[in-house]
Amino acid sequence: MASSSGVPVIPQIELPPGFRFHPTDEELVLHYLWRKTESATFSIPVITELDLYKYDPWDLPGKAILGEGEWYFFSPRDRKYPNGARPNRAAASGFWKATGTDRPVHTSRGTLQKIGVKKALVFYKGRAPKGVKTTWVMHEYRLADGISPSSNTTRKPGSLR
Amino acid sequence: MASSSGVPVIPQIELPPGFRFHPTDEELVLHYLWRKTESATFSIPVITELDLYKYDPWDLPGKAILGEGEWYFFSPRDRKYPNGARPNRAAASGFWKATGTDRPVHTSRGTLQKIGVKKALVFYKGRAPKGVKTTWVMHEYRLADGISPSSNTTRKPGSLR
Repeated sequence: MASSSGVPVIPQIELPPGFRFHPTDEELVLHYLWRKTESATFSIPVITELDLYKYDPWDLPGKAILGEGEWYFFSPRDRKYPNGARPNRAAASGFWKATGTDRPVHTSRGTLQKIGVKKALVFYKGRAPKGVKTTWVMHEYRLADGISPSSNTTRKPGSLR
Repeated sequence: MASSSGVPVIPQIELPPGFRFHPTDEELVLHYLWRKTESATFSIPVITELDLYKYDPWDLPGKAILGEGEWYFFSPRDRKYPNGARPNRAAASGFWKATGTDRPVHTSRGTLQKIGVKKALVFYKGRAPKGVKTTWVMHEYRLADGISPSSNTTRKPGSLR
């Protein structure tokens, strides 16, 4: 959301000019994703919760609380088959396809423990396996196995740029 | 300033994790520098005022209100000779030397007017013309000629990284 002067506005706080939401991977995983899976409440809403697979990427920026060029969402993960782990990546008028290799997210604290996994996806218009590649990229973060505070989490935030 | 958890703290506001001071050149010039030269007050202190030529660059981060890898200051400009415009760039145990060409700062609003000038400087230890180059870089912003709201300004913010 932006006010008419271009200054980002967050419900309940108005930030001075020059402040932006530029989280590190560790902050996204430990503060936002982990707390979300614990059903913790956030005193100030920063990340919108929605099912991003119901939308095309160009419809998402308008639904974010804040962001300039990058937008953040918590989104449930849909399964392709009821009993399988494989995620359903179909979206409104296309699909998201993984690109590159998944990257571990480590904590910068003493332990350097692996706390999450970051996956890059590209949006294709049309239906797999055809589809026309676009320049929309999503970074999906999930908690690393074994560090989930609750065992039945199915939510993760996506960073879209 | 950072709290023990690494979350940036501003006097009077505590920002949620992931928020950082990453101003654009236009925000620095129009919001911070211009307002400073008008002696406007800032509701929340973000940029420390000090004479940065009294210090070595490695002593400055601890004096900034916030910053991670980059720190911002308002600093008066010293003249080399009482009647000349040439600035004195000598600092505690060395000097700052301009590098590259000065770059104009334009407003992104309709007019695209030139509002400021951005100059890059590198810190050298020792005395000119010898001195040993370091990796400390400062970006100095000044208001463009003719847009100064008051004619006798001698202050400018420096971004140090």
